[in-house]
Amino acid sequence: MLSRRSFLILSGVIGGGLLGGLGRLDEVFAKGLKKQKWPWPYEKLNPEKTAEIAYNEWYRIFCGGAVIRSIFSQLAEKIGEPYASFPVDAFIIQEGGLAGWGTVCGSLNGAAVVANCICGPRILGLEAGHIITTNLMDWYANTTLPVYKPKNPKANKERIIQTTSNSPLCHISVGKWMKASGYALASPERRDRCARVAASVAYQLVLMLNAWKDGKLDEEVKWTPASDFGINAQQNCLECHGSNVPEAPKLKK
Amino acid sequence: MLSRRSFLILSGVIGGGLLGGLGRLDEVFAKGLKKQKWPWPYEKLNPEKTAEIAYNEWYRIFCGGAVIRSIFSQLAEKIGEPYASFPVDAFIIQEGGLAGWGTVCGSLNGAAVVANCICGPRILGLEAGHIITTNLMDWYANTTLPVYKPKNPKANKERIIQTTSNSPLCHISVGKWMKASGYALASPERRDRCARVAASVAYQLVLMLNAWKDGKLDEEVKWTPASDFGINAQQNCLECHGSNVPEAPKLKK
Repeated sequence: MLSRRSFLILSGVIGGGLLGGLGRLDEVFAKGLKKQKWPWPYEKLNPEKTAEIAYNEWYRIFCGGAVIRSIFSQLAEKIGEPYASFPVDAFIIQEGGLAGWGTVCGSLNGAAVVANCICGPRILGLEAGHIITTNLMDWYANTTLPVYKPKNPKANKERIIQTTSNSPLCHISVGKWMKASGYALASPERRDRCARVAASVAYQLVLMLNAWKDGKLDEEVKWTPASDFGINAQQNCLECHGSNVPEAPKLKK
Repeated sequence: MLSRRSFLILSGVIGGGLLGGLGRLDEVFAKGLKKQKWPWPYEKLNPEKTAEIAYNEWYRIFCGGAVIRSIFSQLAEKIGEPYASFPVDAFIIQEGGLAGWGTVCGSLNGAAVVANCICGPRILGLEAGHIITTNLMDWYANTTLPVYKPKNPKANKERIIQTTSNSPLCHISVGKWMKASGYALASPERRDRCARVAASVAYQLVLMLNAWKDGKLDEEVKWTPASDFGINAQQNCLECHGSNVPEAPKLKK
């Protein structure tokens, strides 16, 4: 099931491209880059402790950096390298859907870095990182967020509006929440919401990494647009295209 | 101008959140994470050589990984650490708009990693990485791509269709090209197109990094949606919203 679905993702995205690459790994590592030992060493983490770190770190380095640091800082303490030298704070750039452009939610972009550094790149036949990333994006798009309640929320102390984005995009996720709540982007309530979303993603990511460590990761890929629709896409086609969803060109036999 | 615009970006995205974070850097580095020396050492690169590496690497690790490796592998050879230990291949996950979801183009997502590792995170007052990232996204959205012609293209040897995405999103960028060219996602022509886009982004990124190294980086931020429109957003509002573009909630004074 895994290899079948993985092949579908693969074939949809790049056709046979990967095959040509596998043999060239040595040439790659012959350059200045050191060969990585994948998967990186991993010890199961406490999802609630991780979420608390992510919530508080959001106020320093925002969504992507907060998710990465919530996990890598704990593993750097428990294990050391290669986590200790990872340039976590540079990933502040993932904020606001990458430099504020509203593209992919930084919490997901950061989670993708974490999952694929720890589990390794699928180019080496290590597919858990790809599966965790795509299924975490599916979970994010279809979950009423935020789900994690911090011990000491900085706002929305009584209650918080929760919304479902049906999309992994920052602009759509935060936009639907702002519309439902009436709070501005720069409001303490919106900032607390995004910090809770980062914490919720970090919590869910740790659940998936712990399951992977235990050999119990659900390997069914939940969303395969390239193979199913012939284009890399989200799930909410009608939201942007309306009733007129274009059909992707077919491969000429 | 720079600090003014940077403050606008900042205030729009997080209000005063950063100020509370600056004092906590030591606490952060007191954990297992090693303190990074930013900016990372940089030597000016040849944009054409870099683009050629990115084009060929696309066929191994796709857009994001190809852009990162095209620059970090050269700097690992010239300088060594911290480039040599960077887990480049894990960034294969940026393919197809992050795991094939069609969100931000992986070439831009990879370029963001490169620019912010080299120039450093703006949390430390190092703003070049953020400026390069956002202005590269603006360049990408408003440029007829691909612009770089590889020495030995694997397809589209006679000529290649070029399109302007008006967006940093993979789905929109590749979708407009597929519509204009009629080529399928899995076709050799589409794959060559995306490899050329990665090469074009790597070329442009090196031009910006070299300008930064020479103290000649254009520091005017080209797109400031958070401060101008009250939400993290792209430039093509009408394309998804039609004539009914919602207004973001205002901050309650």
